[in-house]
Amino acid sequence: MNLILLDPSEVEGAYAYLTDARRITHLREVHRATAGNQLTVGLQGGAMGKAQLVELSDTQAIFSLESLNEAPPPPLPVHLVLALPRPRMLARTLEHVTALGVKSITLLHTKRVEKSYWQSPELRPEKIHQHLVLGLEQARDTHLPTVTLSKGFRPFLEEQLPTLLNGHRGLVAHPGMTQACPRDIQERTLLLVGPEGGFIPWEVEKLLEAGCEGMHLGPRILRVETAVTALLSRLF
Amino acid sequence: MNLILLDPSEVEGAYAYLTDARRITHLREVHRATAGNQLTVGLQGGAMGKAQLVELSDTQAIFSLESLNEAPPPPLPVHLVLALPRPRMLARTLEHVTALGVKSITLLHTKRVEKSYWQSPELRPEKIHQHLVLGLEQARDTHLPTVTLSKGFRPFLEEQLPTLLNGHRGLVAHPGMTQACPRDIQERTLLLVGPEGGFIPWEVEKLLEAGCEGMHLGPRILRVETAVTALLSRLF
Repeated sequence: MNLILLDPSEVEGAYAYLTDARRITHLREVHRATAGNQLTVGLQGGAMGKAQLVELSDTQAIFSLESLNEAPPPPLPVHLVLALPRPRMLARTLEHVTALGVKSITLLHTKRVEKSYWQSPELRPEKIHQHLVLGLEQARDTHLPTVTLSKGFRPFLEEQLPTLLNGHRGLVAHPGMTQACPRDIQERTLLLVGPEGGFIPWEVEKLLEAGCEGMHLGPRILRVETAVTALLSRLF
Repeated sequence: MNLILLDPSEVEGAYAYLTDARRITHLREVHRATAGNQLTVGLQGGAMGKAQLVELSDTQAIFSLESLNEAPPPPLPVHLVLALPRPRMLARTLEHVTALGVKSITLLHTKRVEKSYWQSPELRPEKIHQHLVLGLEQARDTHLPTVTLSKGFRPFLEEQLPTLLNGHRGLVAHPGMTQACPRDIQERTLLLVGPEGGFIPWEVEKLLEAGCEGMHLGPRILRVETAVTALLSRLF
Protein backbone atom coordinates (compact mmCIF):
# COMPACT_ATOMS: atom_id res chain seq x y z
CA MET A 1 0.00 0.00 0.00
CA ASN A 2 2.10 2.88 -1.32
CA LEU A 3 -0.93 5.15 -1.31
CA ILE A 4 -4.01 5.24 0.88
CA LEU A 5 -6.83 5.60 -1.62
CA LEU A 6 -9.78 7.47 -0.16
CA ASP A 7 -13.29 6.74 -1.30
CA PRO A 8 -15.42 9.91 -1.54
CA SER A 9 -17.64 8.47 1.19
CA GLU A 10 -14.67 8.48 3.57
CA VAL A 11 -13.98 12.20 3.25
CA GLU A 12 -15.71 14.84 5.34
CA GLY A 13 -14.39 18.36 4.98
CA ALA A 14 -10.64 18.37 5.61
CA TYR A 15 -10.67 14.94 7.25
CA ALA A 16 -10.83 11.33 6.10
CA TYR A 17 -12.20 8.50 8.25
CA LEU A 18 -11.17 4.93 7.50
CA THR A 19 -12.87 2.04 9.25
CA ASP A 20 -12.03 -1.06 7.18
CA ALA A 21 -9.94 -3.76 8.81
CA ARG A 22 -7.65 -4.32 5.80
CA ARG A 23 -6.17 -0.83 5.70
CA ILE A 24 -6.20 -0.29 9.45
CA THR A 25 -4.27 -3.53 9.96
CA HIS A 26 -1.86 -2.52 7.19
CA LEU A 27 -1.33 0.93 8.75
CA ARG A 28 -0.65 -0.64 12.13
CA GLU A 29 1.38 -3.68 11.17
CA VAL A 30 3.19 -2.78 7.95
CA HIS A 31 3.50 1.01 8.13
CA ARG A 32 3.68 0.84 11.94
CA ALA A 33 2.05 4.27 11.74
CA THR A 34 1.31 6.45 14.75
CA ALA A 35 -0.55 9.72 15.16
CA GLY A 36 1.44 12.58 13.67
CA ASN A 37 2.91 10.54 10.78
CA GLN A 38 2.72 11.92 7.25
CA LEU A 39 1.43 9.37 4.75
CA THR A 40 0.68 9.45 1.04
CA VAL A 41 -3.04 9.52 0.34
CA GLY A 42 -5.13 10.12 -2.76
CA LEU A 43 -8.75 10.98 -3.40
CA GLN A 44 -10.35 8.47 -5.69
CA GLY A 45 -10.44 10.12 -9.11
CA GLY A 46 -8.63 13.20 -7.81
CA ALA A 47 -5.43 14.60 -6.37
CA MET A 48 -2.92 13.01 -4.05
CA GLY A 49 -0.31 14.17 -1.57
CA LYS A 50 0.74 13.89 2.05
CA ALA A 51 -1.82 13.71 4.82
CA GLN A 52 -1.31 13.64 8.55
CA LEU A 53 -2.53 10.72 10.60
CA VAL A 54 -4.48 12.29 13.45
CA GLU A 55 -5.73 9.18 15.19
CA LEU A 56 -5.24 5.44 14.75
CA SER A 57 -7.15 2.91 16.85
CA ASP A 58 -8.13 -0.74 16.34
CA THR A 59 -11.20 0.34 14.43
CA GLN A 60 -10.54 3.75 12.92
CA ALA A 61 -7.92 5.91 11.25
CA ILE A 62 -8.42 9.65 10.90
CA PHE A 63 -6.35 11.72 8.49
CA SER A 64 -6.12 15.47 8.18
CA LEU A 65 -5.96 16.30 4.48
CA GLU A 66 -3.89 19.46 4.28
CA SER A 67 -2.11 19.55 1.00
CA LEU A 68 -3.41 17.17 -1.64
CA ASN A 69 -2.17 18.93 -4.74
CA GLU A 70 -0.18 16.32 -6.63
CA ALA A 71 -1.57 14.95 -9.89
CA PRO A 72 -1.66 11.16 -10.26
CA PRO A 73 0.74 9.68 -12.85
CA PRO A 74 -0.40 9.83 -16.49
CA PRO A 75 -2.50 6.91 -17.77
CA LEU A 76 -1.49 4.67 -20.66
CA PRO A 77 -3.31 5.60 -23.91
CA VAL A 78 -4.79 2.15 -24.27
CA HIS A 79 -8.04 0.25 -24.09
CA LEU A 80 -7.18 -3.35 -23.22
CA VAL A 81 -9.44 -6.10 -24.55
CA LEU A 82 -8.51 -9.27 -22.77
CA ALA A 83 -9.97 -12.72 -23.35
CA LEU A 84 -11.26 -13.66 -19.91
CA PRO A 85 -8.42 -15.52 -18.12
CA ARG A 86 -8.97 -18.15 -15.45
CA PRO A 87 -10.03 -16.54 -12.18
CA ARG A 88 -6.74 -16.45 -10.29
CA MET A 89 -4.91 -15.15 -13.34
CA LEU A 90 -7.64 -12.54 -13.82
CA ALA A 91 -7.14 -11.23 -10.30
CA ARG A 92 -3.40 -10.80 -10.72
CA THR A 93 -3.69 -9.43 -14.25
CA LEU A 94 -6.17 -6.76 -13.13
CA GLU A 95 -3.69 -5.66 -10.47
CA HIS A 96 -0.74 -5.60 -12.89
CA VAL A 97 -2.48 -3.63 -15.62
CA THR A 98 -4.05 -1.17 -13.17
CA ALA A 99 -0.63 -0.56 -11.64
CA LEU A 100 0.79 -0.04 -15.14
CA GLY A 101 -1.80 2.67 -15.87
CA VAL A 102 -4.48 1.00 -18.01
CA LYS A 103 -7.82 2.82 -17.58
CA SER A 104 -10.20 0.88 -19.85
CA ILE A 105 -10.52 -2.87 -19.81
CA THR A 106 -12.92 -5.14 -21.66
CA LEU A 107 -13.05 -8.79 -20.62
CA LEU A 108 -14.07 -10.75 -23.69
CA HIS A 109 -15.45 -14.19 -24.39
CA THR A 110 -13.67 -16.07 -27.15
CA LYS A 111 -13.86 -19.66 -28.35
CA ARG A 112 -11.03 -20.85 -26.10
CA VAL A 113 -12.29 -19.15 -22.93
CA GLU A 114 -13.80 -21.78 -20.65
CA LYS A 115 -17.45 -20.89 -20.17
CA SER A 116 -17.26 -21.67 -16.45
CA TYR A 117 -14.91 -18.70 -15.96
CA TRP A 118 -17.89 -16.38 -16.44
CA GLN A 119 -19.45 -17.84 -13.30
CA SER A 120 -16.43 -17.08 -11.13
CA PRO A 121 -16.95 -14.97 -7.99
CA GLU A 122 -13.85 -13.03 -9.16
CA LEU A 123 -16.13 -11.32 -11.69
CA ARG A 124 -18.42 -9.82 -9.07
CA PRO A 125 -18.17 -6.04 -9.23
CA GLU A 126 -16.92 -5.79 -5.64
CA LYS A 127 -14.16 -8.34 -6.28
CA ILE A 128 -13.06 -6.58 -9.46
CA HIS A 129 -13.14 -3.27 -7.61
CA GLN A 130 -10.89 -4.77 -4.92
CA HIS A 131 -8.21 -5.77 -7.44
CA LEU A 132 -8.33 -2.39 -9.15
CA VAL A 133 -7.89 -0.66 -5.80
CA LEU A 134 -4.89 -2.87 -5.00
CA GLY A 135 -3.34 -1.87 -8.33
CA LEU A 136 -3.89 1.83 -7.65
CA GLU A 137 -2.54 1.56 -4.10
CA GLN A 138 0.57 -0.18 -5.46
CA ALA A 139 1.31 2.35 -8.22
CA ARG A 140 0.16 5.50 -6.39
CA ASP A 141 -2.66 6.36 -8.73
CA THR A 142 -6.19 7.56 -8.01
CA HIS A 143 -8.18 6.94 -11.22
CA LEU A 144 -10.03 3.63 -11.25
CA PRO A 145 -10.13 1.79 -14.56
CA THR A 146 -13.51 0.87 -16.02
CA VAL A 147 -14.06 -2.83 -16.60
CA THR A 148 -16.65 -4.03 -19.12
CA LEU A 149 -17.74 -7.65 -19.55
CA SER A 150 -18.32 -8.75 -23.13
CA LYS A 151 -19.76 -12.23 -23.00
CA GLY A 152 -20.11 -12.87 -26.73
CA PHE A 153 -17.40 -12.57 -29.37
CA ARG A 154 -19.75 -11.88 -32.26
CA PRO A 155 -21.71 -9.08 -30.54
CA PHE A 156 -18.37 -7.58 -29.51
CA LEU A 157 -17.14 -7.75 -33.09
CA GLU A 158 -20.27 -6.29 -34.60
CA GLU A 159 -21.48 -3.83 -32.00
CA GLN A 160 -18.51 -2.70 -29.90
CA LEU A 161 -15.34 -3.10 -31.94
CA PRO A 162 -16.09 -0.46 -34.60
CA THR A 163 -16.65 2.17 -31.90
CA LEU A 164 -13.59 1.08 -29.91
CA LEU A 165 -11.41 1.33 -33.02
CA ASN A 166 -12.58 4.88 -33.67
CA GLY A 167 -9.46 7.05 -33.27
CA HIS A 168 -7.43 4.07 -32.04
CA ARG A 169 -4.76 1.87 -33.56
CA GLY A 170 -6.00 -1.70 -33.19
CA LEU A 171 -3.35 -4.28 -32.32
CA VAL A 172 -4.02 -8.00 -31.92
CA ALA A 173 -1.30 -9.88 -30.07
CA HIS A 174 -1.14 -13.33 -31.65
CA PRO A 175 1.69 -15.83 -32.18
CA GLY A 176 2.73 -16.29 -35.78
CA MET A 177 1.79 -12.81 -37.02
CA THR A 178 4.52 -11.29 -39.20
CA GLN A 179 4.83 -7.91 -37.46
CA ALA A 180 6.74 -7.80 -34.17
CA CYS A 181 5.12 -5.84 -31.36
CA PRO A 182 5.88 -2.17 -32.12
CA ARG A 183 7.82 -0.16 -29.56
CA ASP A 184 7.22 3.17 -27.90
CA ILE A 185 4.15 4.17 -29.84
CA GLN A 186 2.39 7.26 -28.66
CA GLU A 187 -0.93 6.58 -30.37
CA ARG A 188 -4.20 5.78 -28.71
CA THR A 189 -4.34 2.02 -28.97
CA LEU A 190 -6.86 -0.77 -28.72
CA LEU A 191 -4.85 -3.81 -27.61
CA LEU A 192 -6.46 -7.24 -27.95
CA VAL A 193 -4.96 -10.23 -26.15
CA GLY A 194 -6.27 -13.77 -26.56
CA PRO A 195 -6.75 -16.51 -23.97
CA GLU A 196 -4.31 -19.28 -23.04
CA GLY A 197 -4.22 -21.23 -26.30
CA GLY A 198 -4.81 -18.05 -28.30
CA PHE A 199 -7.60 -16.72 -30.49
CA ILE A 200 -8.88 -19.23 -33.02
CA PRO A 201 -7.97 -18.45 -36.67
CA TRP A 202 -11.51 -17.27 -37.47
CA GLU A 203 -11.38 -14.77 -34.60
CA VAL A 204 -8.00 -13.41 -35.77
CA GLU A 205 -9.32 -13.14 -39.31
CA LYS A 206 -12.38 -11.18 -38.18
CA LEU A 207 -10.29 -8.83 -36.02
CA LEU A 208 -7.92 -8.15 -38.92
CA GLU A 209 -10.86 -7.61 -41.29
CA ALA A 210 -12.24 -5.07 -38.82
CA GLY A 211 -9.03 -3.05 -39.19
CA CYS A 212 -6.72 -4.38 -36.48
CA GLU A 213 -3.05 -5.16 -37.13
CA GLY A 214 -1.66 -8.49 -36.02
CA MET A 215 1.61 -8.58 -34.11
CA HIS A 216 3.62 -11.04 -32.04
CA LEU A 217 5.87 -10.94 -28.97
CA GLY A 218 8.42 -13.49 -30.20
CA PRO A 219 8.65 -17.27 -30.18
CA ARG A 220 8.04 -17.78 -26.47
CA ILE A 221 4.61 -18.74 -25.19
CA LEU A 222 3.90 -16.54 -22.18
CA ARG A 223 1.23 -16.70 -19.52
CA VAL A 224 -1.45 -14.08 -19.99
CA GLU A 225 -0.27 -12.00 -17.03
CA THR A 226 3.34 -12.00 -18.23
CA ALA A 227 2.35 -11.32 -21.84
CA VAL A 228 0.09 -8.38 -20.99
CA THR A 229 2.75 -6.69 -18.86
CA ALA A 230 5.40 -7.31 -21.54
CA LEU A 231 3.11 -5.94 -24.27
CA LEU A 232 2.20 -2.77 -22.37
CA SER A 233 5.82 -2.11 -21.43
CA ARG A 234 7.02 -2.52 -24.99
CA LEU A 235 4.21 -0.53 -26.62
CA PHE A 236 4.28 2.55 -24.36
CA MET B 1 2.75 -27.24 -19.93
CA ASN B 2 3.43 -26.23 -23.53
CA LEU B 3 6.49 -28.44 -23.62
CA ILE B 4 7.33 -31.66 -21.82
CA LEU B 5 10.84 -31.07 -20.56
CA LEU B 6 12.84 -34.28 -20.33
CA ASP B 7 15.51 -34.70 -17.73
CA PRO B 8 18.54 -36.63 -19.08
CA SER B 9 17.78 -39.35 -16.53
CA GLU B 10 14.40 -39.92 -18.19
CA VAL B 11 15.81 -40.67 -21.63
CA GLU B 12 16.97 -44.13 -22.69
CA GLY B 13 17.91 -44.52 -26.33
CA ALA B 14 15.02 -43.31 -28.50
CA TYR B 15 12.51 -43.40 -25.64
CA ALA B 16 11.65 -41.24 -22.64
CA TYR B 17 10.05 -42.60 -19.48
CA LEU B 18 8.12 -40.20 -17.20
CA THR B 19 6.93 -41.37 -13.81
CA ASP B 20 6.18 -38.20 -11.84
CA ALA B 21 2.59 -37.57 -10.80
CA ARG B 22 2.56 -33.89 -11.79
CA ARG B 23 3.21 -34.39 -15.49
CA ILE B 24 1.28 -37.62 -15.78
CA THR B 25 -1.79 -35.97 -14.25
CA HIS B 26 -1.33 -33.00 -16.57
CA LEU B 27 -1.03 -35.25 -19.61
CA ARG B 28 -4.16 -37.12 -18.62
CA GLU B 29 -6.36 -34.31 -17.35
CA VAL B 30 -5.29 -31.19 -19.26
CA HIS B 31 -3.88 -32.56 -22.50
CA ARG B 32 -6.29 -35.52 -22.34
CA ALA B 33 -3.54 -37.33 -24.19
CA THR B 34 -3.79 -40.90 -25.43
CA ALA B 35 -1.27 -43.26 -26.99
CA GLY B 36 -0.46 -42.17 -30.53
CA ASN B 37 -0.69 -38.43 -29.82
CA GLN B 38 2.14 -36.16 -30.96
CA LEU B 39 3.30 -33.80 -28.21
CA THR B 40 6.01 -31.15 -27.97
CA VAL B 41 8.94 -32.33 -25.90
CA GLY B 42 12.43 -31.00 -25.26
CA LEU B 43 15.65 -32.44 -23.90
CA GLN B 44 16.91 -30.41 -20.98
CA GLY B 45 19.71 -28.27 -22.41
CA GLY B 46 19.11 -29.61 -25.91
CA ALA B 47 16.78 -29.80 -28.86
CA MET B 48 13.00 -29.96 -28.94
CA GLY B 49 10.34 -31.20 -31.33
CA LYS B 50 7.38 -33.55 -31.58
CA ALA B 51 7.41 -36.91 -29.86
CA GLN B 52 4.87 -39.68 -29.97
CA LEU B 53 3.16 -40.83 -26.81
CA VAL B 54 3.52 -44.62 -26.88
CA GLU B 55 1.93 -45.45 -23.55
CA LEU B 56 0.14 -43.55 -20.82
CA SER B 57 -0.94 -45.20 -17.57
CA ASP B 58 -1.64 -43.92 -14.06
CA THR B 59 2.02 -44.18 -13.22
CA GLN B 60 4.01 -43.91 -16.42
CA ALA B 61 4.21 -42.12 -19.76
CA ILE B 62 6.46 -43.41 -22.52
CA PHE B 63 7.42 -41.24 -25.48
CA SER B 64 9.14 -42.24 -28.67
CA LEU B 65 11.58 -39.47 -29.59
CA GLU B 66 11.75 -39.52 -33.36
CA SER B 67 12.51 -36.07 -34.57
CA LEU B 68 13.83 -33.66 -31.99
CA ASN B 69 15.60 -31.19 -34.23
CA GLU B 70 14.18 -27.81 -33.31
CA ALA B 71 16.39 -25.30 -31.50
CA PRO B 72 14.94 -23.68 -28.38
CA PRO B 73 14.16 -19.95 -28.65
CA PRO B 74 17.11 -17.56 -28.21
CA PRO B 75 17.94 -16.44 -24.67
CA LEU B 76 17.93 -12.82 -23.51
CA PRO B 77 21.46 -11.34 -23.32
CA VAL B 78 21.08 -10.48 -19.67
CA HIS B 79 22.29 -11.43 -16.24
CA LEU B 80 19.58 -10.45 -13.77
CA VAL B 81 20.61 -9.42 -10.27
CA LEU B 82 17.50 -9.31 -8.17
CA ALA B 83 17.25 -8.26 -4.54
CA LEU B 84 15.68 -11.31 -2.92
CA PRO B 85 11.89 -10.81 -2.98
CA ARG B 86 9.50 -12.28 -0.44
CA PRO B 87 9.05 -16.01 -1.03
CA ARG B 88 5.77 -16.05 -2.93
CA MET B 89 6.91 -13.20 -5.16
CA LEU B 90 10.22 -15.00 -5.73
CA ALA B 91 8.44 -18.10 -6.97
CA ARG B 92 6.36 -16.20 -9.50
CA THR B 93 9.23 -13.96 -10.56
CA LEU B 94 11.48 -16.96 -11.26
CA GLU B 95 8.76 -18.39 -13.51
CA HIS B 96 8.19 -15.09 -15.35
CA VAL B 97 11.86 -14.38 -16.02
CA THR B 98 12.61 -17.96 -17.04
CA ALA B 99 9.70 -17.87 -19.46
CA LEU B 100 11.02 -14.57 -20.84
CA GLY B 101 14.43 -16.15 -21.55
CA VAL B 102 16.71 -15.02 -18.71
CA LYS B 103 19.54 -17.55 -18.24
CA SER B 104 21.58 -16.10 -15.36
CA ILE B 105 20.05 -14.93 -12.12
CA THR B 106 21.72 -13.71 -8.94
CA LEU B 107 19.53 -13.29 -5.86
CA LEU B 108 21.11 -10.57 -3.77
CA HIS B 109 20.87 -9.41 -0.20
CA THR B 110 20.41 -5.66 0.21
CA LYS B 111 19.60 -3.48 3.19
CA ARG B 112 15.84 -3.59 2.60
CA VAL B 113 15.63 -7.35 2.06
CA GLU B 114 14.12 -8.95 5.16
CA LYS B 115 16.71 -11.33 6.56
CA SER B 116 14.08 -14.00 7.21
CA TYR B 117 13.56 -14.39 3.45
CA TRP B 118 16.91 -16.20 3.26
CA GLN B 119 15.46 -18.95 5.47
CA SER B 120 12.51 -19.59 3.16
CA PRO B 121 12.00 -23.13 1.85
CA GLU B 122 11.47 -21.49 -1.57
CA LEU B 123 15.26 -21.09 -1.72
CA ARG B 124 15.96 -24.81 -1.53
CA PRO B 125 17.63 -25.91 -4.77
CA GLU B 126 14.80 -28.33 -5.57
CA LYS B 127 12.14 -25.62 -5.12
CA ILE B 128 14.06 -23.17 -7.29
CA HIS B 129 14.53 -25.90 -9.89
CA GLN B 130 10.78 -26.53 -9.88
CA HIS B 131 9.98 -22.89 -10.70
CA LEU B 132 12.60 -22.76 -13.44
CA VAL B 133 11.15 -25.90 -15.00
CA LEU B 134 7.65 -24.38 -14.92
CA GLY B 135 8.99 -21.32 -16.73
CA LEU B 136 10.67 -23.46 -19.41
CA GLU B 137 7.56 -25.63 -19.85
CA GLN B 138 5.48 -22.47 -20.28
CA ALA B 139 7.73 -20.80 -22.85
CA ARG B 140 8.88 -23.95 -24.70
CA ASP B 141 12.52 -23.66 -23.85
CA THR B 142 15.05 -26.28 -22.75
CA HIS B 143 17.97 -24.37 -21.19
CA LEU B 144 17.72 -24.00 -17.42
CA PRO B 145 18.88 -20.69 -15.96
CA THR B 146 21.57 -20.73 -13.30
CA VAL B 147 20.58 -19.18 -9.99
CA THR B 148 23.24 -17.89 -7.60
CA LEU B 149 22.58 -16.73 -4.04
CA SER B 150 24.56 -13.69 -2.91
CA LYS B 151 23.86 -13.21 0.76
CA GLY B 152 25.97 -10.12 1.36
CA PHE B 153 25.82 -6.83 -0.54
CA ARG B 154 29.39 -5.80 0.17
CA PRO B 155 31.01 -9.10 -0.92
CA PHE B 156 28.83 -8.95 -4.05
CA LEU B 157 30.01 -5.42 -4.73
CA GLU B 158 33.66 -6.14 -4.17
CA GLU B 159 34.10 -9.70 -5.39
CA GLN B 160 31.38 -10.45 -7.95
CA LEU B 161 30.24 -7.19 -9.53
CA PRO B 162 33.52 -6.33 -11.34
CA THR B 163 33.51 -9.73 -13.05
CA LEU B 164 29.80 -9.55 -13.88
CA LEU B 165 30.25 -6.11 -15.44
CA ASN B 166 33.05 -7.38 -17.67
CA GLY B 167 31.71 -7.07 -21.24
CA HIS B 168 28.27 -6.08 -19.96
CA ARG B 169 26.34 -2.82 -19.75
CA GLY B 170 25.34 -2.40 -16.13
CA LEU B 171 21.86 -0.98 -15.54
CA VAL B 172 20.38 -0.26 -12.11
CA ALA B 173 16.62 0.16 -12.10
CA HIS B 174 15.86 2.74 -9.44
CA PRO B 175 13.13 5.38 -9.07
CA GLY B 176 14.30 8.95 -9.40
CA MET B 177 17.24 8.29 -11.74
CA THR B 178 17.36 10.74 -14.63
CA GLN B 179 17.68 8.26 -17.50
CA ALA B 180 14.54 6.42 -18.59
CA CYS B 181 14.88 2.68 -19.15
CA PRO B 182 16.51 2.35 -22.61
CA ARG B 183 14.62 0.40 -25.29
CA ASP B 184 15.58 -2.41 -27.60
CA ILE B 185 19.24 -2.60 -26.69
CA GLN B 186 21.16 -5.48 -28.15
CA GLU B 187 24.07 -5.36 -25.73
CA ARG B 188 24.95 -7.91 -23.10
CA THR B 189 23.46 -6.42 -19.99
CA LEU B 190 23.73 -6.75 -16.25
CA LEU B 191 20.36 -5.65 -14.90
CA LEU B 192 20.06 -4.88 -11.18
CA VAL B 193 16.64 -4.59 -9.56
CA GLY B 194 16.14 -3.57 -5.93
CA PRO B 195 13.71 -4.93 -3.35
CA GLU B 196 10.26 -3.56 -2.48
CA GLY B 197 11.20 -0.18 -1.07
CA GLY B 198 14.23 0.05 -3.36
CA PHE B 199 17.97 0.07 -2.90
CA ILE B 200 19.16 2.45 -0.18
CA PRO B 201 21.03 5.56 -1.44
CA TRP B 202 24.41 4.14 -0.39
CA GLU B 203 23.81 0.99 -2.42
CA VAL B 204 22.84 2.99 -5.50
CA GLU B 205 25.90 5.17 -5.09
CA LYS B 206 28.19 2.14 -4.87
CA LEU B 207 26.61 0.50 -7.93
CA LEU B 208 27.01 3.69 -9.94
CA GLU B 209 30.62 4.08 -8.76
CA ALA B 210 31.26 0.53 -9.94
CA GLY B 211 30.25 1.58 -13.45
CA CYS B 212 26.50 0.91 -13.63
CA GLU B 213 24.05 3.40 -15.16
CA GLY B 214 20.95 4.33 -13.22
CA MET B 215 17.59 4.31 -14.98
CA HIS B 216 13.91 4.41 -14.07
CA LEU B 217 10.66 2.92 -15.36
CA GLY B 218 8.49 5.99 -14.81
CA PRO B 219 6.60 7.45 -11.87
CA ARG B 220 4.60 4.34 -10.97
CA ILE B 221 5.72 2.07 -8.16
CA LEU B 222 5.46 -1.49 -9.44
CA ARG B 223 5.66 -4.81 -7.67
CA VAL B 224 8.93 -6.59 -8.26
CA GLU B 225 7.36 -9.21 -10.53
CA THR B 226 5.63 -6.59 -12.67
CA ALA B 227 8.71 -4.36 -12.77
CA VAL B 228 11.09 -7.13 -13.82
CA THR B 229 8.82 -8.26 -16.68
CA ALA B 230 8.32 -4.65 -17.79
CA LEU B 231 12.08 -3.96 -17.69
CA LEU B 232 13.02 -7.06 -19.67
CA SER B 233 10.35 -6.41 -22.26
CA ARG B 234 11.42 -2.81 -22.74
CA LEU B 235 15.16 -3.49 -22.79
CA PHE B 236 15.21 -6.41 -25.26
